[in-house]
Amino acid sequence: MSEGTISRRALLVGLGVAGGAGAMYAAMGALGLAPDRHEDDYAPPQRSDFALRGKAAAKVVILGAGIAGLATAYELGKAGYDCTVLEARDRVGGRSFTIRGGDKITELGGETQEARFGEGVYFNAGPARIAQWMLTLDYCRELGVPVEVFVNDNPNGYTFNSGMKAPVRTRMARADTYGYMSELLAKATNAGTLDKMVTSADREVLLDFVSEFGGLSDDGVYRGTSRRGYRTDPGVDAGTSPGPLPPMSEVLRYGLGRTVAFPFDYDQAMPMFQPVGGMDSLANKLADAVGRDRIQTSTQVTKITNLPDGVEVVHGGGSVKADYCVAAMPPHILARTSGNLDARVVAALRTPTPLSAGKIGLEYRRRWWETDERIYGGITETDMDISHIWYPSYGFNGVQGLVVGYYNLNADADSYAAMKHADRERRAIQQGIRVHGDKYRTELLSSVSIAWRKQPHIEGAWVGWPSYGAEFTLLQEPAGRVYFAGDWLTHLIAWQAGALDSARKVVTQLHQRVLKEG
Amino acid sequence: MSEGTISRRALLVGLGVAGGAGAMYAAMGALGLAPDRHEDDYAPPQRSDFALRGKAAAKVVILGAGIAGLATAYELGKAGYDCTVLEARDRVGGRSFTIRGGDKITELGGETQEARFGEGVYFNAGPARIAQWMLTLDYCRELGVPVEVFVNDNPNGYTFNSGMKAPVRTRMARADTYGYMSELLAKATNAGTLDKMVTSADREVLLDFVSEFGGLSDDGVYRGTSRRGYRTDPGVDAGTSPGPLPPMSEVLRYGLGRTVAFPFDYDQAMPMFQPVGGMDSLANKLADAVGRDRIQTSTQVTKITNLPDGVEVVHGGGSVKADYCVAAMPPHILARTSGNLDARVVAALRTPTPLSAGKIGLEYRRRWWETDERIYGGITETDMDISHIWYPSYGFNGVQGLVVGYYNLNADADSYAAMKHADRERRAIQQGIRVHGDKYRTELLSSVSIAWRKQPHIEGAWVGWPSYGAEFTLLQEPAGRVYFAGDWLTHLIAWQAGALDSARKVVTQLHQRVLKEG
Repeated sequence: MSEGTISRRALLVGLGVAGGAGAMYAAMGALGLAPDRHEDDYAPPQRSDFALRGKAAAKVVILGAGIAGLATAYELGKAGYDCTVLEARDRVGGRSFTIRGGDKITELGGETQEARFGEGVYFNAGPARIAQWMLTLDYCRELGVPVEVFVNDNPNGYTFNSGMKAPVRTRMARADTYGYMSELLAKATNAGTLDKMVTSADREVLLDFVSEFGGLSDDGVYRGTSRRGYRTDPGVDAGTSPGPLPPMSEVLRYGLGRTVAFPFDYDQAMPMFQPVGGMDSLANKLADAVGRDRIQTSTQVTKITNLPDGVEVVHGGGSVKADYCVAAMPPHILARTSGNLDARVVAALRTPTPLSAGKIGLEYRRRWWETDERIYGGITETDMDISHIWYPSYGFNGVQGLVVGYYNLNADADSYAAMKHADRERRAIQQGIRVHGDKYRTELLSSVSIAWRKQPHIEGAWVGWPSYGAEFTLLQEPAGRVYFAGDWLTHLIAWQAGALDSARKVVTQLHQRVLKEG
Repeated sequence: MSEGTISRRALLVGLGVAGGAGAMYAAMGALGLAPDRHEDDYAPPQRSDFALRGKAAAKVVILGAGIAGLATAYELGKAGYDCTVLEARDRVGGRSFTIRGGDKITELGGETQEARFGEGVYFNAGPARIAQWMLTLDYCRELGVPVEVFVNDNPNGYTFNSGMKAPVRTRMARADTYGYMSELLAKATNAGTLDKMVTSADREVLLDFVSEFGGLSDDGVYRGTSRRGYRTDPGVDAGTSPGPLPPMSEVLRYGLGRTVAFPFDYDQAMPMFQPVGGMDSLANKLADAVGRDRIQTSTQVTKITNLPDGVEVVHGGGSVKADYCVAAMPPHILARTSGNLDARVVAALRTPTPLSAGKIGLEYRRRWWETDERIYGGITETDMDISHIWYPSYGFNGVQGLVVGYYNLNADADSYAAMKHADRERRAIQQGIRVHGDKYRTELLSSVSIAWRKQPHIEGAWVGWPSYGAEFTLLQEPAGRVYFAGDWLTHLIAWQAGALDSARKVVTQLHQRVLKEG
């Protein structure tokens, strides 16, 4: 997941629609939206909290063993809460779903795929990357989940749009774009057009910067630099040019604007990280820490009832009574679960819209992207309906490897979701061949695809709020003895870090209530 | 090592002096300097090469067990050549020197440091990073040296110059610089100043791109975006602004030009790589493959004599006679080794100038840069004489860690080289405190520094050629039966990849001669 950026996601919630990222950010400051609660302020509940107050840890039933549910159980467990986690799927992790050889993936509508990946090959079908500022890394540290760098941007990847004769290395596309941009800016500065904005003292500083930024010749013209790359790399010999500099008009039409700013984003900038061995590692470690015996998988919740002195949850195999409930399920599924939640709450749960995303994992018999094309991780950006091609950030220099052949959203994701797996694979391969040539087909070993709208008990990649309005605020508070948790209740939708922060918030609220009310 | 870039190094060799990187690159294409030999074309010598020709593998003495010497022995060994490697230092690897707890580092002039680093902590005192296109990764693959990502750029690192009140996160410095730059370019485009260069058809494409690149508001003004980062990160709450946008004049004076283009460079762009466990891994695997019994360490060569039918090499412990010699030593040391090399050859060996670089490894008791400042790897750039601060790309989320407290060149390196280690540490810490505050001193466990000009048998970080002229060309050919190899004979000076490509070239030359002459 984690497609889109904070700013792009902001568009989903309305604030940014009018003015773009800049306006959104300015408004955020101006309105003083953010109170002082901060991840560093979090104090986990402790057994000793109860000692002086004559209260005791309560019994809590948690619905959903995704990251939010597991983190809730884990944090409450630190103070001895008696937690039970009910999970409708047959494994923990929710969308933190890492597919390995032998795993079966069944879709709503019927088709089942079985992954045939070899030893050590995995496919992060859901989230796949962690920004260095995210809470996720703190949980990895606390639970001993080793992390490694996730390559989220690679200038050796390609930029390709359907109007181009051939893909261009992103390195070259950027060098030429920055070069021309700098040449234009230098010309304008020298022509005196900007004298109202640029003082004469700033002028030389600006010209120096622009020259360095664009790699201009001393006469202020862009003629290409080694940043474009080489046809044959330097060594004993000096290296050969990768080809002539295209005219500015052609470079502007690469459509680089679509993706150039992506690695600047706060949530997407390199370096990013991933757990070693698969994104489900954190879910698994959390589940181990909670205690596997407290987690009931393949247990679908059918009814949630607030009682005067507790909560009753009915599920496929019976029912659970507890003092409190934390519902860490997708809001659209929660909204249609029966029970006695207030109508306003149910309406609020119906407010965010589930969105579509899909991915395909293509296992290859050899790592041709490394050996033949010198692409070690990172992403190729296209305007085709596959959107991106991701090269793996693990197993470098090994034999086999897994490429993500599409990671697309919305209508593109829906159109792939409507196909059988074999057709998804065929279409992804056809498009990939336009970037990488025939080996994209001939070296393929096996594949698995996911359409998140068709994943049982999840039914969406993530959600979008029409605005962070009253419904969002309402669900931050409990409905009787039922609390809500999930990335969908944060400004970090589709990130594990959102789920973790939401869990901490709910745990703090619930614990404070128990300390007060018992 | 690997400071400077291809383009900056090109300045050392003259070609780029007049016209900057652009001119250099254009000239390279125009002059057609590069013949067709390419790393992909390399065919290692094989035993079977001799079968039809009635020739046999020769005896070869190799001087220097750095990467060039070891790779020469390794490649010749594939065809059964009888290689002996003489190394003056007490270990293999040359500048590929990874320092671990217990290692002793003695400098010319006398001082000896002993590293007190804890288990798992290492310091790459020499080269430390590999670009994804480099031959080095192929050798890692061939020899089974695992590699991982080296974080060469981190927007969460700082930009600091002595004129600033406080360091600025590089993320913010870049966002603001790109923002203002884009605003200026949008204004100039709208004012019509650029109409001679920008057609009306290109105009909208350019404006769209510029707006996205800089994160402009819809009115074309830069007001800051989330790319600047946050004071408190988003989560359940929206996140808070990192502070007001400084005026353009202040942003331009960050001196970002010095470093902004660094991650665009062909040899420095992310992702980069490092061998797991230390940069000496490749040297060690090469030495194992050659056979440790063929390598004599602590064996200084004193005389090299071309004979009618072979070469005689005299060293501290005796002498070796062989059919051929490959001298893979620093040219300035080779130039003063006695023997009967032609005066023109000796003059050519004296032509490149050894350059200075120094580093200090600071071991800390906790990884405060990760926990307190959310910096996972990468580099802080300063205008102080420490130049850079490098955060480690291994051991993420662990307990201890090692920061490179300076990596400086030329006069700055010389001034640190002139100090005792304790003074180097004191000065590096004083400067680091200006970026990171007092914990830079209080959390320190131990340190080790290196001054490459004072390293016995190396006496320089790398060399610079006044030009890639006749002397460079002369040394690409053997002097009698003596061949020359090293990064200094390539356009990849200071990179292991240069040493490897030079070794391949010499191995090919020598093998062809043996197949012809015996």
